[in-house]
Amino acid sequence: MPRTPLRRTVSDLGEFTLLNTVQQILADCNAPSPHGIGDDAAILQPSSGHEWLVSKDLLLEGIHFDSQYATYREIGYKAAAVNISDMAAMGGTPQYLLIGLAVPPSTPLAHVRALYRGLRDICRTFRITVIGGDTCASRTDVCISITIIGTVKAGHALCRNGAQVGDHIYVTGTLGDSGAGLRLLQDRTSRYTGQLPKSVVRFLIQRHLHPTPQVHLGQILAKRRLATAAIDLSDGLSGDLRHLCQASHVGADIEMSNIPISSQCAAYISYSHDSRMKISLASGEDYQLLFTVSPNNQQRLKHMATRLGYMITRIGTIQPSKQGLHIQLADGARQALPQQSYDHFRSSSVQARL
Amino acid sequence: MPRTPLRRTVSDLGEFTLLNTVQQILADCNAPSPHGIGDDAAILQPSSGHEWLVSKDLLLEGIHFDSQYATYREIGYKAAAVNISDMAAMGGTPQYLLIGLAVPPSTPLAHVRALYRGLRDICRTFRITVIGGDTCASRTDVCISITIIGTVKAGHALCRNGAQVGDHIYVTGTLGDSGAGLRLLQDRTSRYTGQLPKSVVRFLIQRHLHPTPQVHLGQILAKRRLATAAIDLSDGLSGDLRHLCQASHVGADIEMSNIPISSQCAAYISYSHDSRMKISLASGEDYQLLFTVSPNNQQRLKHMATRLGYMITRIGTIQPSKQGLHIQLADGARQALPQQSYDHFRSSSVQARL
Repeated sequence: MPRTPLRRTVSDLGEFTLLNTVQQILADCNAPSPHGIGDDAAILQPSSGHEWLVSKDLLLEGIHFDSQYATYREIGYKAAAVNISDMAAMGGTPQYLLIGLAVPPSTPLAHVRALYRGLRDICRTFRITVIGGDTCASRTDVCISITIIGTVKAGHALCRNGAQVGDHIYVTGTLGDSGAGLRLLQDRTSRYTGQLPKSVVRFLIQRHLHPTPQVHLGQILAKRRLATAAIDLSDGLSGDLRHLCQASHVGADIEMSNIPISSQCAAYISYSHDSRMKISLASGEDYQLLFTVSPNNQQRLKHMATRLGYMITRIGTIQPSKQGLHIQLADGARQALPQQSYDHFRSSSVQARL
Repeated sequence: MPRTPLRRTVSDLGEFTLLNTVQQILADCNAPSPHGIGDDAAILQPSSGHEWLVSKDLLLEGIHFDSQYATYREIGYKAAAVNISDMAAMGGTPQYLLIGLAVPPSTPLAHVRALYRGLRDICRTFRITVIGGDTCASRTDVCISITIIGTVKAGHALCRNGAQVGDHIYVTGTLGDSGAGLRLLQDRTSRYTGQLPKSVVRFLIQRHLHPTPQVHLGQILAKRRLATAAIDLSDGLSGDLRHLCQASHVGADIEMSNIPISSQCAAYISYSHDSRMKISLASGEDYQLLFTVSPNNQQRLKHMATRLGYMITRIGTIQPSKQGLHIQLADGARQALPQQSYDHFRSSSVQARL
């Protein structure tokens, strides 16, 4: 029986033909060499009055993503999205992307093509040019390495270290949707999945697989100097607030009842064994922004958000460092913010996150 | 029995303590945040009249390196060296490096520390600042992802696509040493390894484990506009000459007897089953430069090389595209250049290259 195109593997094709295939897929978000794929390095022209932002991430099968729960197109999309979110957190404009992909030689070619298509989808959305890429063999797992390069007006980048005592703490969007979506993917057969309306299940899973980096809002916060510090919510509110406070040498008080939860996530919580606290503090990958704003800028911020239609929510206040990080619960009790963020090396079992 | 520090694993330490350890090791080649490790992205200031060069590589255990053959310090050194070599090939000055490292949680901490020390060693040599890094868990294999950023005077970068018919083809140093060194590492117990003088074995293995990126010579070729095209020899002469010729839309004639071989590599060839042709054309990872020079610039090139003490050797001439790529053997016979370069996906077994 002849092999169908779907069954062709990467090793059937060979490295150089594979490179051509990749270049075809990325054709409309690639630049001609030497400013794109093809030379030993890509050349970037600096523009005056701007600074470059550079960030990189390594994503591994079984750790950061799992093809049981996502298609390769979704994996490609999300691998780029989490890096683009780093640009959003700095207030930058993502411009260039480099991708390294390692796959076992037996990988079906269709998977590799789908992965690059997902990458292309999000690069088109954000008008990002892919300037470098290589595909090599791995022994067992798929490994994706992405470097993203953006620009920001000189001196305007949002850093983690600018929060001041008295600043108000804000988040964009709603928290916990992605974490709830992951649980639903992992427990498709569990009791509560069947009880939830299908539209709720779809919404939460979609939020996990297709997070939207908050690039435009980050740019506005930076350009108008509205935020004193910012970070994107990748590890979960508890961990990421801790990172921001450590960098700024401050403490924080947040209020549980102010943490924005979508109606879909609330429905999930009501059926599942997960508490509202766990889902909103410890589940990561929402890729919303967490940022701090001086009390003097509250009005400007609110006007901007209303005019442009952004959902932003004040969840607390920056405190002196010695007061540490606390959360006020719905019943009024105040407790130290739990350390619940994800630690790759301490999790009892390897945890898939896509 | 108490566990010795040597036996501590990455999972004993946890992600955040590990990050501190890494920052200590990299202390003298790191920059303060936000221009270094610690924010969502690093900020780079552009300098006028220059362009940025960006290159990235993904290196996997069992494919690109093998801890059977190299210490973790050597692996860290070489992972950076192969990326720095990309800057050399473009005539650039490497300035910034980002590293992503994925290791199984059971990895001894000593291995991770050694790997970062090797990286630090070469960053010190080339005055490179580490501006980003993250360490995460993998399921089985170690995975290293490096992005390197350099600068070059605007318009001076050496590209692959500039070779003209009639240009002379040059290589730096000697070819095949690294390939011979790898064979010796793989066949430590074989007959010929015992027959070779120990100093020869040490020299060749050292050339495999500690390649020297030709950064300074690349810079001179670019600055003085001596080369029309350049590439670094990572896949082997046969494959890399093909890449350069394809990018430049030209053919090439090279002479076997002109390919520079070290006396140590010649000794290896005389004892081993490998032919001089196979070792000099198909064995990669020498990280020497292959470049083309207009006949008008031969004298300037030779004066420069003599004055600065660089070994460069003319190995052939660029031909019209339709003539293809040929090699003249020692007996005068002329044949098509064999396609012997390394293809990750076609090798019959997974091949370790460090």
